[in-house]
Parts: sequence; structure tokens; C-alpha cells
Amino acid sequence: MIITAEQVLPALDHLGIGVFALTGALAALRKGLDVVGMAVLAEMTALGGGVLRDLMIGTLPPAASTNIGYVVLPLAATAVVFFWHPHLDRISGSITVLDAAGLGLFCVTGAVKALDHGISPVHATLLGVCTAVGGGVLRDLLSNEIPAVLHDRQFYALPAVLGAGTVSAAHAAGLAGWPVSVAAAALAFGLRMAALHYRWRTPAPPGTP
Amino acid sequence: MIITAEQVLPALDHLGIGVFALTGALAALRKGLDVVGMAVLAEMTALGGGVLRDLMIGTLPPAASTNIGYVVLPLAATAVVFFWHPHLDRISGSITVLDAAGLGLFCVTGAVKALDHGISPVHATLLGVCTAVGGGVLRDLLSNEIPAVLHDRQFYALPAVLGAGTVSAAHAAGLAGWPVSVAAAALAFGLRMAALHYRWRTPAPPGTP
Amino acid sequence: MIITAEQVLPALDHLGIGVFALTGALAALRKGLDVVGMAVLAEMTALGGGVLRDLMIGTLPPAASTNIGYVVLPLAATAVVFFWHPHLDRISGSITVLDAAGLGLFCVTGAVKALDHGISPVHATLLGVCTAVGGGVLRDLLSNEIPAVLHDRQFYALPAVLGAGTVSAAHAAGLAGWPVSVAAAALAFGLRMAALHYRWRTPAPPGTP
Repeated sequence: MIITAEQVLPALDHLGIGVFALTGALAALRKGLDVVGMAVLAEMTALGGGVLRDLMIGTLPPAASTNIGYVVLPLAATAVVFFWHPHLDRISGSITVLDAAGLGLFCVTGAVKALDHGISPVHATLLGVCTAVGGGVLRDLLSNEIPAVLHDRQFYALPAVLGAGTVSAAHAAGLAGWPVSVAAAALAFGLRMAALHYRWRTPAPPGTP
Repeated sequence: MIITAEQVLPALDHLGIGVFALTGALAALRKGLDVVGMAVLAEMTALGGGVLRDLMIGTLPPAASTNIGYVVLPLAATAVVFFWHPHLDRISGSITVLDAAGLGLFCVTGAVKALDHGISPVHATLLGVCTAVGGGVLRDLLSNEIPAVLHDRQFYALPAVLGAGTVSAAHAAGLAGWPVSVAAAALAFGLRMAALHYRWRTPAPPGTP
Repeated sequence: MIITAEQVLPALDHLGIGVFALTGALAALRKGLDVVGMAVLAEMTALGGGVLRDLMIGTLPPAASTNIGYVVLPLAATAVVFFWHPHLDRISGSITVLDAAGLGLFCVTGAVKALDHGISPVHATLLGVCTAVGGGVLRDLLSNEIPAVLHDRQFYALPAVLGAGTVSAAHAAGLAGWPVSVAAAALAFGLRMAALHYRWRTPAPPGTP
């Protein structure tokens, strides 16, 4: 039996959606939100980045409006967190790794979708980052917090910049296709994991506290 | 003289827009905003949910951009609150009832518009809810607060889920048209009024304070 | 050598984008954000109003997705603020004047784009204001603050209302073209500068503190 890219990508895509949704529902739990807040944060964290990307590419309705799995998975993640949250602490390490995998995957698939629609490589890089981190930004906005990715210096967006930038630069050089995408996603995932391990920090302006 | 649905619906629609705008302008007043803040919150509360729905359906420009009444009514509501706010306390009960009517109306009209554009019943349910509560979420975000619907447990979004879900399920079963829509809107309105009367609460996860 | 409007407008447009981006990056600096936060606030402040306008007109992808200069300028502004922020205090007066110029320019170009796409004069006025102040609203939302334009009574949005309203009213009366646009932009710019000089305040509702 041969497993093809066409079979693997949707599975990875839904895995990423599900993990992002889990982080959204868990954030809602920590904020003391009710079941509606948990579902909304799960949906927004999982789908918000892609919706913003599709708005900026002009491909409406966004993918989130035409894929049943995309909207049902966050509801399932909400149910999991609602009933089993005391047990989720045990798998927080796995969630962090899967979140890094989602970051690597979505920065590349977001950039590729933009490039496929004729968007410039510079814009595609920014839209890849938007796909990967936009949902988390909306989650934090709805939680009435400054989005973590803007200030916590956790080296979270920069791996996405490099992953999306790699695939966009390769596209500009006439290189496209699976090997490039896999390499770029692995680069972003690896940088994110290394940042967690070595505690890399995002630069802040010199002369500020 | 016979009053037809074609005459009633636009009137109800504008009534709902006007009441949502009043709640937006009153929220701005409580936050100490100036006349610009009042007008922006009135417009966003009244129109924000519908704009988000139209974005997710892909029907741009949104209805709010092509209907003069939709944008003028919130400005009129702003003027009413600006000059007569000391007298509005007396009608706060009426505003609550009319707001529940707007909730029932917009969750159904939002879902029906999504279904009419070929969106799935699951998505149509979520977009109906988005139409009904999205404006209030934007109002609270602009007021720098966690959106009330996400945490105040006031059983506000769940009536909209049931109203939009009823009309979407009926559509999937081959039932559509005025009687279904009126019944679904009445269900959502009735549940919201019952929730106010019996102090029903939105569930929060077990084991949280 | 004759300088034509076709040469001047893009230059003014990019100047406005760059100044708005500077104010975004400086706001990020004051909030203690890292380089990612600075870049995001610079991009959102510079481009957010135009993206919201294009969404409401229905002209997607937005101009920001197809113009390289629009996305690179905010990155350049971020670099300037990152490295030279201690020296920017000296030019804060110039930034205020250029920001007023951007306000005057964008309220008019936003309204004209809406009118050119068949949007009504009332909507075009609101969308002109949205173009001019929308980016600042998003900047403040991402900084977890009530948008300044909604409550600081600095007479910032009202000059944009008058500038966008003038060009929209002239369009409704059959008058369009460069002289009208320049006059409307100058009116908005002049009112904003006068407001700064004479400390004009945006009205707040009577009977509030």
C-alpha cells in the first residue's frame, strides 16, 4: 500500500486545525469563559488565520465556509476540553509539539495558496505568516489580551516567516512542488522546536526595558 | 387591506437594526466615549454581524454597503442616545424585549441567506448565530472588554443556535419558507425571553469556579 | 518639466502609508512589543483602513495585497523605529503634521474609490472615514486599548467626515475630479491642524462627566 501526498495533506491539515482548536478552547477555559466562549475561541483560533488569508487573496467564500470538517473539529475540541480538561495537563507537551507542527504546516500551505492565486512572493510570505498566527491573534483579542505573538518574544512568528519566505523565494526562482513545501514546513517546525529547547527570543528594540 | 410578508420583513429588519444600534450607542455612553465612539459602536453593533456573515458567504459588497437605511438608522440611534439618554432608562425593559426579538430575527434571516447561497446547514447554523451576536462581539471588543456573550452565561447565543439550527435542519429536510422561518425565530425569541425570566444560565465546564 | 497629478498622487499615497506605519511602530514601542509586534502594528495601522474599505466595497483582493510598496514601507518604518527610536522624538511634530496630511488624503481617496464603484454618497462618506481612521482603530485594538478615536475627543475623525462628505456631496451634485478632491483633502487637513492648534474637542453627550 502506497500513501500519497493527496492522502497525507488533508489529514495533516485537519490535525493542525484540531490542535489549534484545542489551544483556543484551553485559553477560553483559563479565562473562565462559558461553553459559548470556548466554542467561539476554538473556531477562531483554528480558522481565523485562514479566513484572513482568503480575504486578503480575495478567494471568498473562505475555505472555512465550505468544509464541514473545519467547523466540526473545533466543536469536538470544545467538547473534549469541556469534559476532560483536568486530564489535558498530562498531554500539554504533546499539544506544544503539535502546535509547532501546525505552525510549520500552515505557514507553508498559506503561502502556497497565495502564490497559486498570483499573489507576489513578498505578500505570500506575509499571508503565510498570517495563516499560521492569525487565529492565535484573534483568540487573544477575544480574550481581551495583547496578542501573545506581538510581545511575548517566544520566537513563534519568525519561524513562520522563514518557512513561508523559503517557499515563496523558491517559487520566485521557479522551484515549486512537494519537496520544497515539505522542506520549508520542516524548517519552520524545526526552528520553532529549537526555539523552545534553546529558549531563543524574538528581538526587541535596543534601549527598551 | 392585506399586509404581506414582503412588507413586514423589511420593517422588522430595520427595527432590529435600530434596537441593536441603540444598545451599541448606550454601551458607548456607559464607557464614556464621545460622539464618534457612539456612532461607531452603534454602526458596528447593528451591522457587524451581517458584514461578517456576508464575508463568510462571499456575498460582497455586504448588504450594509448598499442599503441607506442600514447606515442611517444607527446614526439616528446615536442622536437619540446623545440628546435623550437620561430618559432611556425608563424604556430599558422595552429595549431588552426588542433586543431579544432582533436576536430571533437575525439568527434566522442570517441562516436563510447562507442556505440560499448554497452554504451547508452546519455552516448556516453558525452563520445565523454570527449574524445575531457578531455585532455585539465587535461592540465589546471596541469597548476593550471580553465579549459578554463569551462569558456572562446569559443564555444569549444558545437561543440563536437553536433558532438557526431549526431553520437549517428544516432546509436539509426539504422544508423551507415563511412558516418555518417564523417558527424558528419565535423559538429563539421565546427561549431568550424564558432565559431572562427563569434566569437560565449557559453551561460552564465542570470543575471550574 | 511638468509634474502631473498621476505622478504626485502615488507619491503622496506612499508618504501617507509610511507615516501611518511610523505611528503604528511607535505605538508598539511604547507598549513594549517586540519586533514582530512592531511590524504587525505598522502594517495594520498603514493598511487596515484601506483593507476594511475594500472589503465593504467588495473589491477583493484589497489594494494592499497587490502593491509591493504598501507592504514593504511598513517594514521599513519598523526598521527605522527599531534602530533609531531615541532620535524620533525630535521629529514628533513633523509626524503629527504628516499624520494630519495622511488623514486628509485617505478620507478623500477612500470616498472617491467607493463612489467610483457605485457606492452611495452616504456610504462613501463613512468608507472615506473608515479608510482614514480604520488602521488606527486596529492598532489600538491590537494594543488592548479602547481605540483613541472613539473617546479621546481629539477632533480627529470629524475632519475626515467633512473631507469625505464634501467629495461625496460634490459627486452627488455632478461635480468630480481633481480640484474637488484637492479642496476636500485640504479642508480635512486644515480642520485637523486647526483642531490641534485651537484644541478643539469632539462633542461628548451632555450630562456626562
